Amino acid sequence: MNITIDREVLLENLNIISRGLPNKSPMPIITGIKFYATDVDLFMTSSNNDISVEVTVSDQSLNIVEAGSTVVPGRLFIDIIRKINSKKVNLFLSDDRILIIKADRGEYKLHIMDALEYPKIDFVPLENPLVLHSDIIKSLVKETVFATAQTEKKPILAGVNFSHNGGNLVVTATDSFRLSQKITSIAEYSDFNLTIPNKSLDELVKALDNYDGDVSLYFTQNRLLAQFRNVCFQTRLLEGNYPDTSRLIPSTFPIVIKFNKDELVEAVERVSLLSPRDKERDKEITYSIIKLSIRKDRTVEISTNNTVYGDAREEVIPTYVDAENPITIGFSSRYLLEALKSFMSTEISLNLTGEIRPFVIRGEKDANLTQLILPVRMD
Amino acid sequence: MNITIDREVLLENLNIISRGLPNKSPMPIITGIKFYATDVDLFMTSSNNDISVEVTVSDQSLNIVEAGSTVVPGRLFIDIIRKINSKKVNLFLSDDRILIIKADRGEYKLHIMDALEYPKIDFVPLENPLVLHSDIIKSLVKETVFATAQTEKKPILAGVNFSHNGGNLVVTATDSFRLSQKITSIAEYSDFNLTIPNKSLDELVKALDNYDGDVSLYFTQNRLLAQFRNVCFQTRLLEGNYPDTSRLIPSTFPIVIKFNKDELVEAVERVSLLSPRDKERDKEITYSIIKLSIRKDRTVEISTNNTVYGDAREEVIPTYVDAENPITIGFSSRYLLEALKSFMSTEISLNLTGEIRPFVIRGEKDANLTQLILPVRMD
Repeated sequence: MNITIDREVLLENLNIISRGLPNKSPMPIITGIKFYATDVDLFMTSSNNDISVEVTVSDQSLNIVEAGSTVVPGRLFIDIIRKINSKKVNLFLSDDRILIIKADRGEYKLHIMDALEYPKIDFVPLENPLVLHSDIIKSLVKETVFATAQTEKKPILAGVNFSHNGGNLVVTATDSFRLSQKITSIAEYSDFNLTIPNKSLDELVKALDNYDGDVSLYFTQNRLLAQFRNVCFQTRLLEGNYPDTSRLIPSTFPIVIKFNKDELVEAVERVSLLSPRDKERDKEITYSIIKLSIRKDRTVEISTNNTVYGDAREEVIPTYVDAENPITIGFSSRYLLEALKSFMSTEISLNLTGEIRPFVIRGEKDANLTQLILPVRMD
Repeated sequence: MNITIDREVLLENLNIISRGLPNKSPMPIITGIKFYATDVDLFMTSSNNDISVEVTVSDQSLNIVEAGSTVVPGRLFIDIIRKINSKKVNLFLSDDRILIIKADRGEYKLHIMDALEYPKIDFVPLENPLVLHSDIIKSLVKETVFATAQTEKKPILAGVNFSHNGGNLVVTATDSFRLSQKITSIAEYSDFNLTIPNKSLDELVKALDNYDGDVSLYFTQNRLLAQFRNVCFQTRLLEGNYPDTSRLIPSTFPIVIKFNKDELVEAVERVSLLSPRDKERDKEITYSIIKLSIRKDRTVEISTNNTVYGDAREEVIPTYVDAENPITIGFSSRYLLEALKSFMSTEISLNLTGEIRPFVIRGEKDANLTQLILPVRMD
């Protein structure tokens, strides 16, 4: 193999390839990037347990002097290309199992691995795509993925569920204490129900970072392939049935209060500084519990009591109140903050049904986005 | 105590006070900030094992309704004031050992500690100052502190030595593998020799961040007090005799090479990516050893050999070479990078005396700044 390419083009593709590199692996070959140069194109591949990425480079700056293939140490190779500031990079595979990187007055000789040992990756056939715009994918993930479970207790909840039924795409995430759901209509496509690991979605969004355009999605029973530009990004799907969440979201709300979102966020952040840390429900994550009260005079108070350090109280002026009686709910401030940050609306509404019943957050400009939080019982 | 003050003024002073707060302490009172309001001024104090800070606030926005004193949980109090975005803050000490912070529609009640339990801090008397400009102090620290020892093996080497003898202030730091030294002339003052802990100097530089002006330094046998604006910043000094380093720096150099500093930094950073990690000399810090060779044709090569991943080689074009014979030295790339970054000069010189003898780095525009590095023996 002997190729020359613009460093910037190579780096841009490596940034996408890096999404599929494992942090560590008992199989050294997997920590490498596979290069495969034909007479016209350069293919680069990375793969870990969840994600496989392949890019096809046919940039006009690419000059393939000699075809060939190899596997190079992944992160090290990317670090070198990142640090180099030459315009061109030459990659030359010498006979003695060494890849020579030449860039200006620098020369790097990397011990390579055998391309034949690299596992063969089965990509989903590129047939019958569901086409979504990259902006849609990015916002669907941003609106839901934070609500997935971070622990392995119920593996299926560590994914976001995409369910399609007669024109409506319902995207759902829940860790069983809160739920995010976005409903959106898509072009005609057969029904499907698949659950994508949260980490894969984070990586997909990063891979789409500099891309603005259509993405073709292909899937089988256990894999999803996102294809855009010169990139194939494939992830495994989570096995098992995603729980039916359709009955969890209340449909009528006797109590509705609306706020300026930023004012509410700031008040909650301040009060949270004093909220006691509750590790009961989930050992790995710290919850800080705050209270929200609608008082008799229809003012709203966010507060917390901390036996160690003291108490905090903020009055927030709602832009709208519809409540017959005073009510107080207690909940994780982190859940509320994460939910609020998923809205692009300036004004959001809190929709309550009772002190220990789930409440729902909606935004005037975020059609069909529902954030639901389960309150905790207050003393 | 009952005072009102502009939040911004309070926060600015708290940022300086935070320099003296311990991260943790077996004595809870020490993690607090002491407030002491007279009828005209507000004093705030923080203190840890090394550093004590006191600010005197007599800002025109300060309104002392009632004098008094208390100790509040330090980091929590600062976090709250930082998060508040009101213009004014009211601090009111209620009878039941609670400090009430009022800001706009927010109210925070902090459990306080007893001001009488706060340790009395002995500040150095403000007599006979040595006056240095804040810029001088900042650059003296930046040029030397990185070369102090990070371990506790030889406690005195974890400080920067300031020695004054007949008009010359000699500032020295060494971890016994490298040495930084800056000589500067100061106004008439009696001789002194003191060693300031590296962490205290880092905190002093942060405390001086927004200050541009003269700083008065006062010292005793074991303490140094820096006084500027409304701030008293005191640190303990390290005990013991600082080693005599005067004979370590060679005075004549048979080999001199000059480089564009940035080009050398970039080449060294790239080659370091492949340098083997050597933990022999100091278990806690990773060294990456690289080689610099002046070749027969007077070109200069930076290189490294890594049995695991491969080799790296960069040719750097010197702006000047004075060398009779080829020579190769090996050394820690981190030491060289940290030394190079201490210079403001565009062109720097490497001054060599032999393959295993200390070499010296100087900058054309950095008068009297010497960076010395001890090479390692290469195989």
